[in-house]
Amino acid sequence: MAEADVKQSSSQAAAVRQRNAVRNVLDKVKAEGRSALTAPEGKLVCEAYGIPVPKEGVAQSASEAVALAAGMGYPVVLKIVSPDILHKTEAGGVIVGLGSDDAVDKAYETILANARRYKADARIEGIQVQQMLTGGQEVIVGAVTDGSFGKLVAFGLGGVLVEVLKDITFRLAPATREDALSMLDGIQAAQILKGVRGGEPIDRDALAKIIENVSELVSDFPEIAEMDLNPIFAKPNGAIAADVRIVVDFAPKEARYRPSQEQIVTQMNRIMKPDALAVIGASSEDGKIGNSVMKNLINGGYKGAIYPIHPKADEIMGIKAYKSVKDVPGPIDVAVFAIPAKFVAQALIECGEKKIAGAVLIPSGFAETGNVEGQKEIQEIGRKYGIRLMGPNIYGFYYTHKNLCATFCTAYDVKGKAALSSQSGGIGMAIIGFSRSAKMGVSAIVGLGNKSDIDEDDLLTFFEQDDNTDVIAQHCEDLKDGRAFAEVAKRVSKKKPVIMLKAGRTSAGAKAASSHTGALAGNDKIYEDVLAQSGVIRARSLRDLLDFARGVPVLPTPKGENVVIITGAGGSGVLLSDACVDNNLKLMAMPEDLDAAFRKFIPPFGAAGNPVDITGGEPPTTYRNTVKLGLEDPRIHSLILGYWHTIITPPMVFAELVVSVIEEMKAKGIHKPVVASLAGDVQVEEAAEYLYAHGVPAYAYSTEIPVAVLGAKYKWARGAGLL
Amino acid sequence: MAEADVKQSSSQAAAVRQRNAVRNVLDKVKAEGRSALTAPEGKLVCEAYGIPVPKEGVAQSASEAVALAAGMGYPVVLKIVSPDILHKTEAGGVIVGLGSDDAVDKAYETILANARRYKADARIEGIQVQQMLTGGQEVIVGAVTDGSFGKLVAFGLGGVLVEVLKDITFRLAPATREDALSMLDGIQAAQILKGVRGGEPIDRDALAKIIENVSELVSDFPEIAEMDLNPIFAKPNGAIAADVRIVVDFAPKEARYRPSQEQIVTQMNRIMKPDALAVIGASSEDGKIGNSVMKNLINGGYKGAIYPIHPKADEIMGIKAYKSVKDVPGPIDVAVFAIPAKFVAQALIECGEKKIAGAVLIPSGFAETGNVEGQKEIQEIGRKYGIRLMGPNIYGFYYTHKNLCATFCTAYDVKGKAALSSQSGGIGMAIIGFSRSAKMGVSAIVGLGNKSDIDEDDLLTFFEQDDNTDVIAQHCEDLKDGRAFAEVAKRVSKKKPVIMLKAGRTSAGAKAASSHTGALAGNDKIYEDVLAQSGVIRARSLRDLLDFARGVPVLPTPKGENVVIITGAGGSGVLLSDACVDNNLKLMAMPEDLDAAFRKFIPPFGAAGNPVDITGGEPPTTYRNTVKLGLEDPRIHSLILGYWHTIITPPMVFAELVVSVIEEMKAKGIHKPVVASLAGDVQVEEAAEYLYAHGVPAYAYSTEIPVAVLGAKYKWARGAGLL
Repeated sequence: MAEADVKQSSSQAAAVRQRNAVRNVLDKVKAEGRSALTAPEGKLVCEAYGIPVPKEGVAQSASEAVALAAGMGYPVVLKIVSPDILHKTEAGGVIVGLGSDDAVDKAYETILANARRYKADARIEGIQVQQMLTGGQEVIVGAVTDGSFGKLVAFGLGGVLVEVLKDITFRLAPATREDALSMLDGIQAAQILKGVRGGEPIDRDALAKIIENVSELVSDFPEIAEMDLNPIFAKPNGAIAADVRIVVDFAPKEARYRPSQEQIVTQMNRIMKPDALAVIGASSEDGKIGNSVMKNLINGGYKGAIYPIHPKADEIMGIKAYKSVKDVPGPIDVAVFAIPAKFVAQALIECGEKKIAGAVLIPSGFAETGNVEGQKEIQEIGRKYGIRLMGPNIYGFYYTHKNLCATFCTAYDVKGKAALSSQSGGIGMAIIGFSRSAKMGVSAIVGLGNKSDIDEDDLLTFFEQDDNTDVIAQHCEDLKDGRAFAEVAKRVSKKKPVIMLKAGRTSAGAKAASSHTGALAGNDKIYEDVLAQSGVIRARSLRDLLDFARGVPVLPTPKGENVVIITGAGGSGVLLSDACVDNNLKLMAMPEDLDAAFRKFIPPFGAAGNPVDITGGEPPTTYRNTVKLGLEDPRIHSLILGYWHTIITPPMVFAELVVSVIEEMKAKGIHKPVVASLAGDVQVEEAAEYLYAHGVPAYAYSTEIPVAVLGAKYKWARGAGLL
Repeated sequence: MAEADVKQSSSQAAAVRQRNAVRNVLDKVKAEGRSALTAPEGKLVCEAYGIPVPKEGVAQSASEAVALAAGMGYPVVLKIVSPDILHKTEAGGVIVGLGSDDAVDKAYETILANARRYKADARIEGIQVQQMLTGGQEVIVGAVTDGSFGKLVAFGLGGVLVEVLKDITFRLAPATREDALSMLDGIQAAQILKGVRGGEPIDRDALAKIIENVSELVSDFPEIAEMDLNPIFAKPNGAIAADVRIVVDFAPKEARYRPSQEQIVTQMNRIMKPDALAVIGASSEDGKIGNSVMKNLINGGYKGAIYPIHPKADEIMGIKAYKSVKDVPGPIDVAVFAIPAKFVAQALIECGEKKIAGAVLIPSGFAETGNVEGQKEIQEIGRKYGIRLMGPNIYGFYYTHKNLCATFCTAYDVKGKAALSSQSGGIGMAIIGFSRSAKMGVSAIVGLGNKSDIDEDDLLTFFEQDDNTDVIAQHCEDLKDGRAFAEVAKRVSKKKPVIMLKAGRTSAGAKAASSHTGALAGNDKIYEDVLAQSGVIRARSLRDLLDFARGVPVLPTPKGENVVIITGAGGSGVLLSDACVDNNLKLMAMPEDLDAAFRKFIPPFGAAGNPVDITGGEPPTTYRNTVKLGLEDPRIHSLILGYWHTIITPPMVFAELVVSVIEEMKAKGIHKPVVASLAGDVQVEEAAEYLYAHGVPAYAYSTEIPVAVLGAKYKWARGAGLL
């Protein structure tokens, strides 16, 4: 064997030994029917996974004690070890705070003498030498098991103040070194770890290593339900866990069935882009859901085969009808259900026999109304036949690039690159209304409802490979399988921005969510951290979700962090600067030569620097020159424009000149994100619309929204490693 | 003298003695040319204002030492007092942590013996007994002098973690007992003071008393520029300041001239509602500012006298022109300036001689372009003649109820109850555009620009007594006189909601602000706390300012805190609940009988409780019945409606039924705040508009904005003491 192989093999063997040590401890705990580990067991587990705990050893002589103490580092504690001395302190058998060889030497003899004086015939097995933990910063590392996300590792500072401020951060376990280091920066009080008031910074590597090891341990042993290292003494060199608490649960949760990513893609492609579609419960009768679905399919311009299914009708809306999907001669990709809940199971079995890829279950009357059994029944049928279920209790879905409106809502046909989904029907309708109103092009709008099967990660997997989709925006109240979502989102968000509005953020919201679709909203801080860890952009409000979905795909990816504000309204410049800070955007420090170049174009009393304040009364050329310079200079990566409505440069003149400069630069291969805030009379609304239609997210009467959209693009680009 | 009089007189005398004690200390410091007090001086000042400091005394015998120690409470420290012993500790002259009479007795003798051994001939003046401070919670009370707000008192926890988290709160000094107590609750870590993990709560009264006394001290002695009590040891009984630092500044800032409130009202009424108006620089030439102003006055329908002033013209736009305001036969209330900066001073003198109440200074070219002297010159003319100056560097102002558009911008005529102002012209244009677009009725829109004279508090004083104004919304980048503003706002906000968008919140924003109009943005946390202390609703964004200005006056004042959500979309219910928490609204705990009453109207699978989820497929009667119940039941104080667009209850049907129920209830004397969130296709926009026009702030595609508007109304009502 080559040397490297030997090393690897020996480290593998060590890892196996480590795991065996933990396995033995856990087996014993299980055999004894306990739910927690003893302190020595906890220590053993920690040692097996390289988590530093106080060093200790038993010495049989003063010189042995000195050697042990010197090995572990001062100060140390000496304690008598004797089965006959129970009250060690009373017996003078404990001496703390020993700081030198000499002190240990003397203390050893003192304790021995004390012990003999206390109980002359005591059997003395030796004297324990234990590393004494003092000073440093107290921190906490822990692990929890979440119903949706599974194993999570947690980090925070120790102490009651931190508890009051709830300053703690989570990551999915196992956590990488990078994740672990990001946790040290992920608490509000992060500065403490870096050293304040002249204090030395703590040992980041040592802490990160502990976080990694804890996360690995709980991942290797799912029966570890909770773990707390509290406190850990973190110092400039090293970190040691003073106390370990481990709680176990030997009744593991049943793993959720997940098809492979390939299977998901194959089936979702058939469902979302079907060549043939059945409408179960199609109807000619106005007002019926089955009628609305048929109308939307036909009027929406769907070009595939439509098979109305109806127990009696021969024809519906001019299309031949069948009694069952099984009577249809050709293959069917997807079946849209528009029948009452009680008939769904039987029809679903027929779909299974027909090898239909997916069922779009519009009907309500399942888990959301308390009919949990009914939902379970259809889930089992779905699994048995390999049919993926969308819903139940949904409005259906749209896939615009197939002209497909498989829904009872109004038809929607503005094709674009944004794919949206919602757990709730009401929010779905808001998405449709906003999209139409804002002329936001979409690739798909999908209702997920009760999420008996298809959920957010299935959609991510589909949209990842869907060439018609550039951005994915999702509304959810819970994630049935947060871990699966996070894994997929981490991959997908590297390619396409993923935006999420997580409803039920607050306890009141979570309560409302649980009464709504049976969603048990998780701890919001866990969602917050895991979504960030997965590269997901979190929207704080419904409007944010919609504005981000609309604006993010319109903007090119920035090539760097330098943002410059060019404004005609100084007042807008101030608010835009505030918004940059709020959205974590970096206002470029203006280089002297560039400052001088800008000054050439603006009045002497205008302010260069950043914002570049061109002042209010300027003609179109001033806007043109400064915007052009902002685009041309390679040190600037993004522009935020603040327009002030004047007679000299009316709104549409501004909008058109901005678009023409951008086009001119594009022709030269320069393409930077530009957003705009328009202050002025109502004519600015038309100008904003024109700008948006030409690739510049622009808003009238708002300084904050355009900057938030740019901020979302940056957040994505950073998460995807593009910056 | 009656007993009460004697008491009062004696406490007055004590107060005088206290002030004299401080005066003596400060006189000495001033005479010695120092800028800080020594520790004993600081202690003396604290004692004079009832701020507890460690007790101490000098004993001449062991028994005296014991008596002193017993009087101040254990533990104590004993220290040798001798001019011949400089290094007390070296001499064995300090013993700490003495916990009993006996220990003090022994320590006294030990120190004496040590001292004699150290230096046999040392003159010994006695032994100092000092109270030793241990345990308790470390907190900080301080005072600062802010350029805009003057004296402020500050409170925070002690320790490095709090410093990192910047968890500190401010109030204007002097602070009332109520202010002081609100500071204890005003820090993020407030819970610490109430006792956590079984800890005892600290003595709130003792801390509040210290805050009050510090605030009184710095108010009485403006030369105290900064003061720090750090740390204060706060315990379950009492609080003691361990260390005092006082910095003085004997060069006090010149007090800003403020007319009396009566003077302001008289002059502002002439300015804002003039009967006669001059346009200095009126012009017939298209494109000139003096022409735009004339057009706006005439086309806006102003009914008062208009006097164009022009050096040569006899007539402008059909109206007789004059060479100078002095040539005009009748009185003039206000002059609008549309001439270059360099001509302003001379024309202003003529206005003064004509006894014109105010000058609207549209011209730029003053402090904002570096012409500080020019601005000072006109300020002096204004003071000399008693003319109030609006601007310079502004768009002018609108007062709709006089059909007055004294501006070069477009005319605006939608009369209403909202008065808005902006420091920046660009933001002013955004206000005009939004108002027109949203059909927001306004009473006034005012540009303040450089604020050489008239500022936000003058406007507050005017709008307070203006019957056409119900709400005041202001954009500012700084407050030239934050203290005057806070004092006026505190009074006005009790009667009418005052909303403020403070730009330059962030350091980047503040930098932009300072380059913009010379505004030096203050510490944002000070603004945050003082605005709250003054009952001002702070808007976080331009849209918030506009939405609050539009919605707050539309809503009636709620009679209590109980908010109920009634929603057709469960998903909206969840987001609306989140928004309630975000906006500090209380979701009413639904009483059983009321729950049962709601259940009668909704499907069995709907969810009562709060939100009341009536489910999506319901007819108009379900909305009608539940909204009616919500308005009728006196335990409910406000309603938030979540509408879900369906064919069964289309948007306008919903909107009309809601308005009809509200009208029906109004006829019975029931008038509660109702806001609505509409989820649906674009038709919901018309429904939202209809609802808004009928007193229900309603938004399409947003769950957060309607709740934020309701939250702003509540915030105001609480601040005004109406809840």
